[in-house]
Amino acid sequence: MSLSHTLADIVGRRHVSTDPDVLAARSVDHTGRYRGRASMLVRPASTEQVAEVLRACRDAGAHVTVQGGRTSLVAGTVPEHDDVLLSTELLTELGEVDVIERRIVAGAGVTLAAVQRAAAAAGLLFGVDLAARDTATVGGMASTNAGGLRTVRYGNMGEQVLGLDVALPDGTVLRRHSRVRRDNTGYDLTSLFVGAEGTLGVITGLELRLHPTPAHRITAICGFADLDALVAAGRVFRDLDGIAALELIDGRATTLTAEHAGVPAPVDGAWLLLIELAAGTDPTALLADALDGLPLAGEPAVGVDAAAQQRLWRVREALADVLGVYGPPLKFDVSLPLSAITAFAGEAAALIRSHAAEAIPVLFGHVGEGNLHLNVLRCSAAAERDLYAAMMELIARLGGNVSSEHGVGTRKRDYLGMSRTAADIAAMRAVKQAFDPTGYLNPAVMFGRS
Amino acid sequence: MSLSHTLADIVGRRHVSTDPDVLAARSVDHTGRYRGRASMLVRPASTEQVAEVLRACRDAGAHVTVQGGRTSLVAGTVPEHDDVLLSTELLTELGEVDVIERRIVAGAGVTLAAVQRAAAAAGLLFGVDLAARDTATVGGMASTNAGGLRTVRYGNMGEQVLGLDVALPDGTVLRRHSRVRRDNTGYDLTSLFVGAEGTLGVITGLELRLHPTPAHRITAICGFADLDALVAAGRVFRDLDGIAALELIDGRATTLTAEHAGVPAPVDGAWLLLIELAAGTDPTALLADALDGLPLAGEPAVGVDAAAQQRLWRVREALADVLGVYGPPLKFDVSLPLSAITAFAGEAAALIRSHAAEAIPVLFGHVGEGNLHLNVLRCSAAAERDLYAAMMELIARLGGNVSSEHGVGTRKRDYLGMSRTAADIAAMRAVKQAFDPTGYLNPAVMFGRS
Repeated sequence: MSLSHTLADIVGRRHVSTDPDVLAARSVDHTGRYRGRASMLVRPASTEQVAEVLRACRDAGAHVTVQGGRTSLVAGTVPEHDDVLLSTELLTELGEVDVIERRIVAGAGVTLAAVQRAAAAAGLLFGVDLAARDTATVGGMASTNAGGLRTVRYGNMGEQVLGLDVALPDGTVLRRHSRVRRDNTGYDLTSLFVGAEGTLGVITGLELRLHPTPAHRITAICGFADLDALVAAGRVFRDLDGIAALELIDGRATTLTAEHAGVPAPVDGAWLLLIELAAGTDPTALLADALDGLPLAGEPAVGVDAAAQQRLWRVREALADVLGVYGPPLKFDVSLPLSAITAFAGEAAALIRSHAAEAIPVLFGHVGEGNLHLNVLRCSAAAERDLYAAMMELIARLGGNVSSEHGVGTRKRDYLGMSRTAADIAAMRAVKQAFDPTGYLNPAVMFGRS
Repeated sequence: MSLSHTLADIVGRRHVSTDPDVLAARSVDHTGRYRGRASMLVRPASTEQVAEVLRACRDAGAHVTVQGGRTSLVAGTVPEHDDVLLSTELLTELGEVDVIERRIVAGAGVTLAAVQRAAAAAGLLFGVDLAARDTATVGGMASTNAGGLRTVRYGNMGEQVLGLDVALPDGTVLRRHSRVRRDNTGYDLTSLFVGAEGTLGVITGLELRLHPTPAHRITAICGFADLDALVAAGRVFRDLDGIAALELIDGRATTLTAEHAGVPAPVDGAWLLLIELAAGTDPTALLADALDGLPLAGEPAVGVDAAAQQRLWRVREALADVLGVYGPPLKFDVSLPLSAITAFAGEAAALIRSHAAEAIPVLFGHVGEGNLHLNVLRCSAAAERDLYAAMMELIARLGGNVSSEHGVGTRKRDYLGMSRTAADIAAMRAVKQAFDPTGYLNPAVMFGRS
C-alpha cells in the first residue's frame, strides 16, 4: 500500500492531499523567500492520529516536516526533502479555563488569539503576545519558544507551558501534564520539547499557564537623542514594579510609518522607547517619577486610557506593518549584552552601508532583555548572503546570540555553532539520536546537513 | 594502576581518600536514616578534573555518586553500589557580580549563603532562599531544582540558572552559557541538566540570575480557624503586586515551637499564613486592604521594620528547627491542586492516626503554589514503610505530585510512576541512555533498579 493510502486510512481521505497547488502553496515560507518541495499534506485530527502518521512515515522512510501557523521568521516549516507535510491545523480543541489553578488546555493548532480571548473571558491573561497572534499556533509557538512583546514581564512561551502532549518519532505518545504548578519528579522533558522546533517529536496539545489581569495600566512613549541614553533608561524601567513592556523603536523609521501607515512619530527623538506598566495599584505616579529624571528629547506621550494606549501601541505595530514596503525585509533577531547595544547598532549600520548602500536599516526590539530585531529594507538579493554572514559574525564578536526568539529553523542552522559549542551541539545530536535515530522528523531545521 | 592511583594522579593525593571513617561519614544522609557504602572519596578542583575523574571511573567500571552539600531530603547522595564519591566541595570559585546583566558565575560547591551575600553586596538579590542556605551548594540545588521560601515570586532554582558547565559521563565538558538573557538557539539542555539529579552529568559551574532588591518590604502573619479559609485567602494574596512569600504554618505546631524553641504563636488560629510583600513602592496600604476583608481568627501580626519582620519569620523557621525533637521526622514534600489541600490535610491526618497513633503531623508549605511539606514526628520505624506508601497513593489520588521541590533521590524512585507515565519514563530512560549508556553515574537515584 502506498504511503498516501496508509495515511488516508489513519486520518480519512479528505485529510490527505497530493494536489500540486496545495503542496506548492505550503512549501514556501510566508515571505516567499524560501521554497521547498513536498510530496503530500496530511492533517491528523488527534494526538493518536499524529502518532500513527509519524509511525507510518518512519516505516515508509519518508521525511516529515511539521507545520503550524507557518509564521516562522527563520523558514522553519519549509520542506527540503520532498517531505510529508504534517499540519496541526485540525488540532483546535480548546478546554475550559481553570480559574483556580490558572491554566487552559489547548490543541497545538489553536491560535494565540484564541487562547488570549479565552483567558480574557475568564478574567485572566495569557503571558505571550506577538504580532502574528491571529495566525501563529500555540503548538508552533511552543516548538520555537516564541517571545514577543511581554517577555520582560512573563517570559517566553516556554515559561507559559505547564504540560505537553507529544507524539514521538517512534509513534508513541508522551503525555506530560503537571496538573499542579509544582512538580519536581524527574527530567524536565517539557522544556526539552519546547524550543526543539519539532525535531524531537510533534507537540499536539498544551497545558498553558494563565496570569491575573492587572487592574491598572499605563503606557508611554518617550524619545532620546542617542541610543546609549535609551539603554540606560531601559535599565531604570526594567526594575519598576509592574513593568509590562519595554520596546525600542527606531525613530528614523517613523518617516516610513507616517508615509505608509499614517502613523507619525508621537514624540521627538532619534530613538523611541515604549514603556508600559500594569499593576494592581495605579502606576501613574511611579511612571511619572521615573520619567522625571531622564534626559528625554522632548515631552513624553503618556496614555492613561485604553484608547490613548492603543494609539501609542499603534506606533510599534505600524513599524512591523511597514517593514515589507520594499518587499520582504532581511531580518535579524539577535540578543546582545545591554552594554553592546549601541556598538551593535553603529557597526551593523556600517556593515549595511558597505554591503548594500541603498538599503534602509530599521531597528526595534525588546530592550529590557537586549533582544533586538534588525530589519534591512530594500536589500538586494546579491548583497544579502554576504551581509547575513557578516552580521552573524558581528553578533558573535559582541557576545550576543544569533537567535533571540525566532529560533534556528533552516535559516540559521549554519550559524548554530556561533552560539553553541561543539560539545553542546554534540549533546544536542545525542538527544536527537535518542528520540529520532533515523532523523526523519523535521530534518531540515536546527542542525542542517552534516 | 588502581583507580585510586589514577584519581590521585588527576586531583592530587590529598584529595583522594579511602579512610573508612571518612567514607562512613559521607555514606549516610544527614538524618542518619539512609546509609550506603562507598569505596573512595575524590575531590576534584576544576571542571576539567571532574571530567577526567568521570572518564577514569567509567573506564574502570566504577559507579559514581555525586555529593554537594548533602542536604538532600530524599537521600539523593547516599551511595548504594560501593561507589566512588565525587564531592564538589573544592569547586568554590565565585565570580564578580555583573550588575548590568544581573548575573554571577559560581562554582558548583559554592553555598547558597555565599551567593546571597555576594548579590546583596552588589545591591541585588538571589531569587532562591531555603533553610539549609549555609550548607546547600548551588550545584546541588540546580541538580535537584530546589525550591524554597521565594518560589511564589522568583520560581525554583532552575529559573535562576542562565548557564551551566557540565562534565558529561563520557568525560567531555559542556559549557552552555547564554551570556545574554535571551537565547533561542537549539535545545534547552540547561533545563535538562537542572533537576536531573546528577544522572546526566555533573554540574561544575553555574551562571546565575540576580534580581533587583525591592526597596520596601512588609511581613504579616494572620490566623484562620480552618484551612479552607486560609487557602482562599492565599488565592487573594498570590495576586497582590509584590507578593514575595506565602507560607502556610500549622498552628497546632506552635505548641512545639513555644516549648522547644521559645517561639510562641504570634496570633490565634489553627492555621497561620505568613505573607510578605516586597516592592519598589510601599506596599503597607495594599496589605492592609487585602487583610481587611478576610475572615481572620484574630488580629494579624504585622512587621513593618526589619526586626519585627525577622521575629515573624522566626515562627516559620522555628517550625523547621523543632521537627527533629523526636528524632528525624518522616517527611513528605508534595504538591496538590489548591482545591484538594483541605481534603489532603484531613485524609493525611487520618492515615497517620491509623498507621501510627502516637505520631504528630506537622504541616507547612508554600501555599501559593500548592506545595505542602507534611512532617510526621514520632513515627515508629515499624509504621513508616506502610504509611509512606499509603501517603503516596493518597497524593496521586488527589491529583498531586509525589515530589514538589525535593526531587526523587533514592527515597521516591519507586513512586516515580505515580507522577510520570510509562511513555514519559521511557523517554527519560532514552535520554539517560544517550548520555550515560553504562549507567555508572548516580545509579541509585531517580530510576532505581529495573
